[in-house]
Amino acid sequence: MARLDVDGHPHSLYEPIAYSLSAGGKRLRPMLTVAACNVFSDNAPAALPAAAALEVFHTFTLLHDDIMDNAPVRRGKPSVYGKWGANSAILSGDAMMIYSYKLLQQTPVEYLPAVLGCFNYTALTVCEGQELDMKFESRNDVKMEEYIEMINKKTAALLAGATIIGAIQGGADPHSRQRLMVFATELGLAFQLQDDLLDAYGTEAQLGKPIGGDILEAKKSFLMLTALAKAEGEMKNRLMALLKDSTMAPEQKIAGVLEIYNALGVREDAEREIALHFGKAMEALDSLDVDAERTEPLRQLAQGLLNRKN
Amino acid sequence: MARLDVDGHPHSLYEPIAYSLSAGGKRLRPMLTVAACNVFSDNAPAALPAAAALEVFHTFTLLHDDIMDNAPVRRGKPSVYGKWGANSAILSGDAMMIYSYKLLQQTPVEYLPAVLGCFNYTALTVCEGQELDMKFESRNDVKMEEYIEMINKKTAALLAGATIIGAIQGGADPHSRQRLMVFATELGLAFQLQDDLLDAYGTEAQLGKPIGGDILEAKKSFLMLTALAKAEGEMKNRLMALLKDSTMAPEQKIAGVLEIYNALGVREDAEREIALHFGKAMEALDSLDVDAERTEPLRQLAQGLLNRKN
Repeated sequence: MARLDVDGHPHSLYEPIAYSLSAGGKRLRPMLTVAACNVFSDNAPAALPAAAALEVFHTFTLLHDDIMDNAPVRRGKPSVYGKWGANSAILSGDAMMIYSYKLLQQTPVEYLPAVLGCFNYTALTVCEGQELDMKFESRNDVKMEEYIEMINKKTAALLAGATIIGAIQGGADPHSRQRLMVFATELGLAFQLQDDLLDAYGTEAQLGKPIGGDILEAKKSFLMLTALAKAEGEMKNRLMALLKDSTMAPEQKIAGVLEIYNALGVREDAEREIALHFGKAMEALDSLDVDAERTEPLRQLAQGLLNRKN
Repeated sequence: MARLDVDGHPHSLYEPIAYSLSAGGKRLRPMLTVAACNVFSDNAPAALPAAAALEVFHTFTLLHDDIMDNAPVRRGKPSVYGKWGANSAILSGDAMMIYSYKLLQQTPVEYLPAVLGCFNYTALTVCEGQELDMKFESRNDVKMEEYIEMINKKTAALLAGATIIGAIQGGADPHSRQRLMVFATELGLAFQLQDDLLDAYGTEAQLGKPIGGDILEAKKSFLMLTALAKAEGEMKNRLMALLKDSTMAPEQKIAGVLEIYNALGVREDAEREIALHFGKAMEALDSLDVDAERTEPLRQLAQGLLNRKN
């Protein structure tokens, strides 16, 4: 073996896990767990194992998604798939998912059944979202409501799960949990729609990757689905032709699609939709029957997310 | 979508799960869980969720192993990988692993922390075993003790985990758990060595697949490692040449290796080793301080396994 294994634990299984976990990221999910717990109690230390479990689970999904999306790069660095290959990304990803449950097992026993139940439900929902996303790739008739359902499952559900798991360990009553679920779900939708927007209207420096990736992959993003629904006559034909053209230079294709987006006001539609979901999130947060200072960290977290540039 | 999804749950995610779980198999792991629980109590119904979780987890590992091994066929039928492709096998496998934890969450709360802890430890160990197995493929210096460690982790650990999880829910004391761990681990080693033996000395009708698969893949099985250690001079050269030859007809290669196995008495070595591990398993079982009738189902299960032909 190229490198000594520690106590019989194969180094090559764990190296990709350490690599992916130390690659950075916003740590949004564990922050939601801790902040949600703090809304109701000062019990946050008890929620830390589950908070860590949610981050590890999230990072695990990236390992497997990158195989399925054939993506050798993530955040400007080689992905685990790109660096070690598919088999390694599969198996280290599996070990990582198990590791998230190993963290979860440190949850105080009085909360364990509820936390485990919420974690499992959330994790399965994320898989369903990824499945829908993959199926949409080969379809040309994806409806906006289907797209919203997909991002609800693939992205928003994990933010909601992270938040509720924190709330459970804070001792939140069922009504408050439900309010926080609305908060995190709406925040998650706004977050994903903003991702769509940044891909077309951000800059390469902001994104850490070239803009227009969604356009080149003919991804059914909010922008694309809106454009396809709004475009008529000659413009619709031009959009369809651009999407199908596989020989055009990438910059030309991106510029052509953006021109249509601009003509149709698709950017403003997205901004309106983001503001709508963000407003619903804030409304749900404000409706909680607690001192405003208790929810302030969640509010700031959400606001910071809305103002982000990547 | 080709087929209606039920309440937004994508059918295409769950179909490979149902397919693989209904493909049969010995159901050895859940039987161990229930039989181990019954050694100490009549509490077996409480152990059923965990028993099912272990079978689902085991089947999940087959989905991902078949991708890594590039195996389109399992038990004479297309594998999930062969039937739906790698992406589907990855994602339905992930959902399946989560589903095993969803079953586990039904474990009575008084046993949940211990059962979850044992399950996580076992599951990570199985990943380590698969990692070692993959690494061995590209190595020509695998030692017998490394091979035993690998099958200990890849195969025996899950039988041990299944047994201990049953024992926990039967209320077994730590000493008895330890005895049962030895029982199941030794049984697992005997079981895997017998697999190696059947691959070379079984019949196609028994196996449901052609014999000699391990030989063609130059797998470092117990037989091969023993032969490589025992062969000398001209015979060793012939064995190495057979292993490296990628142009020879498969039947010829298998016949050539079997001839060397026979000359070296490798089959008898394997049979002796199997009997040794099986004997240790029985010894551990006999050392339990319970009425013999309580351990009879485990004894019969082990005996049936030793006499199996596939």
